Amino acid sequence: MKWSQTLIPTLKENPADAELISHKLMVRAGIIRKLSSGIYSLLPLGFKILQKIEKIIREEMEYAGASELLLPILSPSELWKESGRWDVYGKELIRIKDRQNREFALGPTHEEIITDLVRKEIKTYKKLPINLYQIQIKFRDEIRPRFGVMRAKEFMMKDGYSFDRDEANAERTYKKMYDGYYKIFSRLGLKFKAVEADTGAIGGSFSHEFMVLADSGEEVIVSCSKCEYAANLEKASGKNSDVTSKTGKTENLQKINTPNIKTVEELTKFLNCSAKNLVKTIICKADKEYIAALVRGDYEININKLKNILGCCELTMAQAEDIRKLTNAPIGFAGPVGFKNIKIIADESVKNMSNFITGSNEADTHLMNVNINRDFKIDLIGDIRLVKESDLCDLCGEKLVFTRGIEVGHVFKLGTKYSKALNATYLDEQGKDQIMVMGCYGIGVTRIIAASIEQQYDENGIIWPVSIAPYQILITPLNVKDDEIKTTADTIYNILSKEKFDILFDDRDETAGVKLKDADLIGIPLRITIGSKTLKEGKVELYVRKSKEVYKISKEEIVPKIKELISSI
Amino acid sequence: MKWSQTLIPTLKENPADAELISHKLMVRAGIIRKLSSGIYSLLPLGFKILQKIEKIIREEMEYAGASELLLPILSPSELWKESGRWDVYGKELIRIKDRQNREFALGPTHEEIITDLVRKEIKTYKKLPINLYQIQIKFRDEIRPRFGVMRAKEFMMKDGYSFDRDEANAERTYKKMYDGYYKIFSRLGLKFKAVEADTGAIGGSFSHEFMVLADSGEEVIVSCSKCEYAANLEKASGKNSDVTSKTGKTENLQKINTPNIKTVEELTKFLNCSAKNLVKTIICKADKEYIAALVRGDYEININKLKNILGCCELTMAQAEDIRKLTNAPIGFAGPVGFKNIKIIADESVKNMSNFITGSNEADTHLMNVNINRDFKIDLIGDIRLVKESDLCDLCGEKLVFTRGIEVGHVFKLGTKYSKALNATYLDEQGKDQIMVMGCYGIGVTRIIAASIEQQYDENGIIWPVSIAPYQILITPLNVKDDEIKTTADTIYNILSKEKFDILFDDRDETAGVKLKDADLIGIPLRITIGSKTLKEGKVELYVRKSKEVYKISKEEIVPKIKELISSI
Repeated sequence: MKWSQTLIPTLKENPADAELISHKLMVRAGIIRKLSSGIYSLLPLGFKILQKIEKIIREEMEYAGASELLLPILSPSELWKESGRWDVYGKELIRIKDRQNREFALGPTHEEIITDLVRKEIKTYKKLPINLYQIQIKFRDEIRPRFGVMRAKEFMMKDGYSFDRDEANAERTYKKMYDGYYKIFSRLGLKFKAVEADTGAIGGSFSHEFMVLADSGEEVIVSCSKCEYAANLEKASGKNSDVTSKTGKTENLQKINTPNIKTVEELTKFLNCSAKNLVKTIICKADKEYIAALVRGDYEININKLKNILGCCELTMAQAEDIRKLTNAPIGFAGPVGFKNIKIIADESVKNMSNFITGSNEADTHLMNVNINRDFKIDLIGDIRLVKESDLCDLCGEKLVFTRGIEVGHVFKLGTKYSKALNATYLDEQGKDQIMVMGCYGIGVTRIIAASIEQQYDENGIIWPVSIAPYQILITPLNVKDDEIKTTADTIYNILSKEKFDILFDDRDETAGVKLKDADLIGIPLRITIGSKTLKEGKVELYVRKSKEVYKISKEEIVPKIKELISSI
Repeated sequence: MKWSQTLIPTLKENPADAELISHKLMVRAGIIRKLSSGIYSLLPLGFKILQKIEKIIREEMEYAGASELLLPILSPSELWKESGRWDVYGKELIRIKDRQNREFALGPTHEEIITDLVRKEIKTYKKLPINLYQIQIKFRDEIRPRFGVMRAKEFMMKDGYSFDRDEANAERTYKKMYDGYYKIFSRLGLKFKAVEADTGAIGGSFSHEFMVLADSGEEVIVSCSKCEYAANLEKASGKNSDVTSKTGKTENLQKINTPNIKTVEELTKFLNCSAKNLVKTIICKADKEYIAALVRGDYEININKLKNILGCCELTMAQAEDIRKLTNAPIGFAGPVGFKNIKIIADESVKNMSNFITGSNEADTHLMNVNINRDFKIDLIGDIRLVKESDLCDLCGEKLVFTRGIEVGHVFKLGTKYSKALNATYLDEQGKDQIMVMGCYGIGVTRIIAASIEQQYDENGIIWPVSIAPYQILITPLNVKDDEIKTTADTIYNILSKEKFDILFDDRDETAGVKLKDADLIGIPLRITIGSKTLKEGKVELYVRKSKEVYKISKEEIVPKIKELISSI
């Protein structure tokens, strides 16, 4: 492709609204342009990268036994009502009405549509398993779109869905897809980690997220410093390194004055004690019932874990008004002692504590020397806390490490959540109706472009891995008005085109400075620079964007040298 | 691909809602499934065909110098308001509001978005011409979606846009794209015709539609039986074969009683005269003004031509109420004599008539022996009629022929319609602001699948041309429980896979009857049938779907024979 024929509008300045380096560089390198908040055009360079990523996904999905199809974007509300998601999805779901007043969603994900298709077309065990996917534009009405294509309203996603006869087969398919995803992200040239992820309260389900490791990532990855354990923050569990065990005798319960002291910080300062002596009481609304969750003062509640343990659909923090009514006290003074008709769920960190401090359900006072069983009863104990970096690995006891990542893929053994709701059944060998067991598998295709940049760039611009670079080779004649340079560049372009390399030819009449700056910015892995100085020696320069190595070579050496470099970088 | 691994749900019965053969066969062959009115899922077979079509489009677009990008589906209302289309587009445009109450259209076409992009990124003549395209889902809220993917609410379209310095360069680009389209539709294996199409009232513009020839087509193609002339019905012009010339003397104007006689048919019967002696008067509202259009009794008004000649934005037939007010008579009795303050536009077919019959603007009467100039004045004369099949070619005088077609492509020299509205300008060599000259180029990608079937099918099913067939070769072992058959089929599958043929392997445990019926239905060009009878002779059958030829060949002959057949069919 000749640069002059296409649209690669490079910029010197960073866009004002960009925070992340990938967002800045994608705009500056002419990969994307913003049309509206969270809505981007992929310019020719961006589209080429997208195609490279899609090709790798398609090859690995075929290998994993999945078939590609294309489902509609307009998704009828009836199916969403059948699954129950029409009402719970909230404002992220873009809803429209057509001229006949029929309601549709702009598909953010396609579980309903694919399940509807499969339930209609597959009636017998003979036609299972089936594994279907698409690469399609998705919509999510983000309340605050940001970070360029990282969190956009409209984006390209690969979403796949598998249907199996039973749990065991579904797990085999899951494993195949997990392996396929591993190969995809490896081939994309990304440094990534597969981490355990939350599945909600769906029985028999599990899930992994594929995280590209980057300090700018929005997700926290919890992994073990020694063993293979890794999970996202929502899912991660760990042992507290300093288990509080019941020691000494049980002291008498005591009410103390704590005027206007509400937070853990204020309280530990005021009482000159450790947060580990405190128990926090969090009042939540689980579906229609109020519950109190207890956690040691130095931990935070993990809403997802709490929701899963309760098996409820919706879990929200109680409103100030409700807390006041339930505790007869202002916010900040709730405590488990004296609670009636409120289920108490305690985190494991609380289990072995004694003589601890809690709220008293009275303004400006707290209780000291509170003890479980003597002063209040616990209804349920479990892991309902967010792990801390000082916690220890549940598996091997070594230290946990917190790092950050960008979620680019997600594999999910869904179980029968959708197949049950939509009644996707098949007849088994005995002629008996059975519910299909599903999995779903997503990849954020546009997001990968940004994630790759977050991992590979320098002060001059992007550094593409060969596998997803928009072009493998950039040919840069430093002065197209110089006949010898121009002719040499044309010849090299023809030679390399015949070899089926993917080439961008910078045929623009611009200064050498502009061209070399743009070359570094757009980050094509290999550059052939043709200037009069090296031409006098009968050579051209072959420059490797990543290593900054320069090879002076003759025309004849170009093809073998490029082949060698492409297979090595 | 193994049949058992993918989803090809063939059906014996035609779907109840299908009228067209392509719609019936696409459903029966498992290519599409309806999700909602006008909304279809492309199943794996359909998606494969789509990919083949897209590949051909991409290759020819690259050859023609166009670059691919991907524009958003969500299209901000501001740009549509700037072009003026937000208000005139009507109900076919699907409109949404996001959670911040911002308005968007679901893009039915992208002139506004691309013009906005180019006006921001291209400021100088040095960067022109630029030719950009995308292959993207489009939306049109059809009042009555029908004919399967032929007239759908959601469909795949290739839309391209070119920007040139001036008219002459824009015409060169247009020619390149026209040639590119010719190559695309030829390579797709379609019988088609490029016909002149209407451009509205845009000065200096022209346009061609690419029509796939099919009796089921919704469009009427008017072409000359001798020369190259071809146009769609909206655009077509022709000479009337029986030019009415002024003959004899001018008779006296006479009012006659025609009780309750309103239509041309009734009147010619009542008066026992030819429709050629009548002049029809049609009252229309052109923007805010009422006009009367006159046409000889045997012709119909062509609203598009009338609109173009008037240069108005909106042209509608006048309401009954308005006609009554303007003519002081019920509908059916309007005539030009006595009209005041109503502009009269006459078709050329009226120009040379004398002593003709018109309405009298009085109930139940008509005027005889009406004559132009003596009885009324004409403000404007032009070609404002629909051609008839008995008309003669404007270019060579031979007979015109009416055939039917399916519009699959459209090239349009837009001129400055959008670049002016959105102020897309560049600086020329003299540093002067100039308006870019645009072209736009569309292909109905999903529609091509249906159009191809309309041209090539038989009583057993679809007959794909090799270029867009989902697979080139179908391997059909007639009994997968027979070891020899199974082994032979596997071997052939491996041999052909190594040769990079695109193969579907019918590994299903179904009867020979089911498999052969399905094979004919889905229409793969070549089929290798493996049965015990031919195997005894050491042979397999190679079947050509289109010609129904059968070759009994040995394993060794398969590859060369297939190569020979693929290049010949």
